[in-house]
Amino acid sequence: MRPGIPKGTRDFSPIEMVKRNYIFDTIRKVFQKYGYLPLETPAMENLSTLMGKYGEEGDKLIFKILNSGDYLKDAEALILIDKDSKKLTGSISEKALRYDLTVPFARYVVMHQNDITFPFKRYQIQPVWRADRPQKGRYREFYQCDADVIGTPSLLNELELIQLIDDVFTALGLKVLLKLNNRKILSGIAEILNEADKIIDITVAIDKLDKIGTDKVMEELRSKGVSENAIQQIKPLLTFKGTDLQKLDLLKSLLQNSETGLEGIREVESIFGYASQLSLTNVDLELDITLARGLNYYTGAIIEVKVNDSRSTFTGSICGGGRYDDLTGIFGLPGMSGVGISFGADRIYDVLEEANLFPENAGETTKVLVVNFGGDEIRYAIQLVVQLRKAGINTELYPDEAKMKKQMSYADARKIPFVVLAGADEMNAQEVTLKNMLSGEQERLKLSDLAGRIK
Amino acid sequence: MRPGIPKGTRDFSPIEMVKRNYIFDTIRKVFQKYGYLPLETPAMENLSTLMGKYGEEGDKLIFKILNSGDYLKDAEALILIDKDSKKLTGSISEKALRYDLTVPFARYVVMHQNDITFPFKRYQIQPVWRADRPQKGRYREFYQCDADVIGTPSLLNELELIQLIDDVFTALGLKVLLKLNNRKILSGIAEILNEADKIIDITVAIDKLDKIGTDKVMEELRSKGVSENAIQQIKPLLTFKGTDLQKLDLLKSLLQNSETGLEGIREVESIFGYASQLSLTNVDLELDITLARGLNYYTGAIIEVKVNDSRSTFTGSICGGGRYDDLTGIFGLPGMSGVGISFGADRIYDVLEEANLFPENAGETTKVLVVNFGGDEIRYAIQLVVQLRKAGINTELYPDEAKMKKQMSYADARKIPFVVLAGADEMNAQEVTLKNMLSGEQERLKLSDLAGRIK
Repeated sequence: MRPGIPKGTRDFSPIEMVKRNYIFDTIRKVFQKYGYLPLETPAMENLSTLMGKYGEEGDKLIFKILNSGDYLKDAEALILIDKDSKKLTGSISEKALRYDLTVPFARYVVMHQNDITFPFKRYQIQPVWRADRPQKGRYREFYQCDADVIGTPSLLNELELIQLIDDVFTALGLKVLLKLNNRKILSGIAEILNEADKIIDITVAIDKLDKIGTDKVMEELRSKGVSENAIQQIKPLLTFKGTDLQKLDLLKSLLQNSETGLEGIREVESIFGYASQLSLTNVDLELDITLARGLNYYTGAIIEVKVNDSRSTFTGSICGGGRYDDLTGIFGLPGMSGVGISFGADRIYDVLEEANLFPENAGETTKVLVVNFGGDEIRYAIQLVVQLRKAGINTELYPDEAKMKKQMSYADARKIPFVVLAGADEMNAQEVTLKNMLSGEQERLKLSDLAGRIK
Repeated sequence: MRPGIPKGTRDFSPIEMVKRNYIFDTIRKVFQKYGYLPLETPAMENLSTLMGKYGEEGDKLIFKILNSGDYLKDAEALILIDKDSKKLTGSISEKALRYDLTVPFARYVVMHQNDITFPFKRYQIQPVWRADRPQKGRYREFYQCDADVIGTPSLLNELELIQLIDDVFTALGLKVLLKLNNRKILSGIAEILNEADKIIDITVAIDKLDKIGTDKVMEELRSKGVSENAIQQIKPLLTFKGTDLQKLDLLKSLLQNSETGLEGIREVESIFGYASQLSLTNVDLELDITLARGLNYYTGAIIEVKVNDSRSTFTGSICGGGRYDDLTGIFGLPGMSGVGISFGADRIYDVLEEANLFPENAGETTKVLVVNFGGDEIRYAIQLVVQLRKAGINTELYPDEAKMKKQMSYADARKIPFVVLAGADEMNAQEVTLKNMLSGEQERLKLSDLAGRIK
């Protein structure tokens, strides 16, 4: 029997963990700098909390947990005889693994609405699970790093999220393109096309522009019953090239009869106005009216971040988000406006790896290995180790009395930069021999000078 | 519809998260100081990896995940008609949530045995899931913090884990009692009682001594078919009071004809010998021959840590572990000796809370709130905030142009220690008013002096 792990899941080795933690720590630190508070919710949610929140496709991708004990006891015989999987699920499963961090956040806010001080800024860094078909770069278990603020309609929040994204990618050393759009502009477009009821079909189709091109998008619109007249009106928008200001001008004239559309334009202009005052370091800001992110709950700003760095070939999105005016309405608390973003840690990992942007010392964990000579010397070695650790130096004592060669190979393989040798000679003189594994140099030191020397 | 969460699970609010992270960070830092490397494994394991590893009771407590799609398609009709839940499980579920971190670690070591440098020291801090009946202090989702070293039989590892436990609880400011036993002593006892085949029954019964008392333990031994003669021989051991040295003497004479038993005694003596040279700070070390921890895979040292602090009434175990000579054998890699411990973060949390040992500033997250005056002043406020954050100060800008009273209440409720006021006056003079929320004092400062003053 060779053991394995479920497809689409991964083990993270120590080397990968150190790099992943570098990403998580960087993001967490920026979240905290902006006043976002940590929150964690259970991996398991009630099935009723999750079902119906991600569309029919999403429902299928939710991992359901089998009830404990004699779970078939109350199942309907007819359903069992029919082998009707879909109908049976509700009677043998009450819980499921969370599919994202947004719905659990909304659920949390509603449950704790009386204890929360609004505006409530929370961040959450936890894994989510989706029964997607596994493929390169897509996993069934992956981490999301979300920051959301709820209970405030102010556009300053959108501005702040843009600054926050800039801070994160500046800390990571990566240049990015931040695409901004506004759902109200998309609504305005559907409105002036007299296709307001098809707003979702239209945004979903437009969202695919990057991937499938203008012709295919128009085809999809046709297949959804959008009139040929409307499609022809939309076309120049889809193919428009120009500066952000020119884009806004085109939109202003196109949407002059749509109050919603004009409101969206004003919001974008306001955010651009604030942002122009800041000197963003690693973020290029761009208006992209084809950006819809396929998510139906955004009501205002829509944000997507892509790599904009010659050292990476990655074309997907590495961060995204937007404003939702009524996220908690589904759980009975209407009128709470919120805005949030989510960093894709797995994708950022791949990009940093490709661009060689992980700091060198991200791989260094143990700083000193103390060689085990056995005999009486071991008691001296134990003292040594205590002293080094007290000085805050990550130190290991090789546990077995193995041959010197084996112990040195261990230090090599683990990339431990210093080795301490303390045989009978050194012990009797209360000294040590310190070997630098990179340079190969050795020197003899007083025990009392050791920690200082390594630091 | 009032939303809820599955029973036995918990949300962790920001206040709880900050305290939990304090515990995790403390433990993680000590793990790293001792050269343990981080590892993470997926929440989901193959059902075949987990089943049969935790005994029959454990198997029932494993959360199984329903297969995706038409999971009933290939189920046997007869099993469905019989409503045989137990038999059906294998055909509708292939995956399950991990039950602990030890079995996934063993599975990882076997899968990656050719890439790992042994001895392999790894730590893992992740949640586990058990379908236990929820009760006070027992949850269905909880974190384990494990450190294990595999591939070395040296007793120095046991010593090091004792030092590590001392470092963790010293950092947390909690006095603890560390009980040490050795499975070989228990085996020796079973051996000289001529009940070697009942070693598991005997250890499980002995393990309950603290909870149910001598009489009930003897009753349980009887019910398992242990001879009355053996039970009478065991009795003085169960009721023995004395120093560790006296205990060891009693054992040496009792076990003089058991080689295994004497080996166990030698191991304990060796660890005690090493430990007596160290000055342990917060750990009291004690031999407890009634300690078995009910876990059948320990083969050498058995460790259990309890609170030993007048500020806490908690009597349960907050850390435990031991040596297992053949953990990876179940996955086809025999003869790898390992030793490890696991910290119970949830219980430690409760103890620190009761003993009031969380550091005061563990609750402080945002350091400064900048008041939002709206109008032109907002642009000044935005700059201010950028400057404070650049100086590494966690800062929030109140997003809405709310009344001063509301903004100050927000700072109060969030326990933010400083508030910055920058109205038209201050803006025109490139100054700010800084209010200390604790003392109530206000002072006017140059913008350039602000960050330094707060620090």
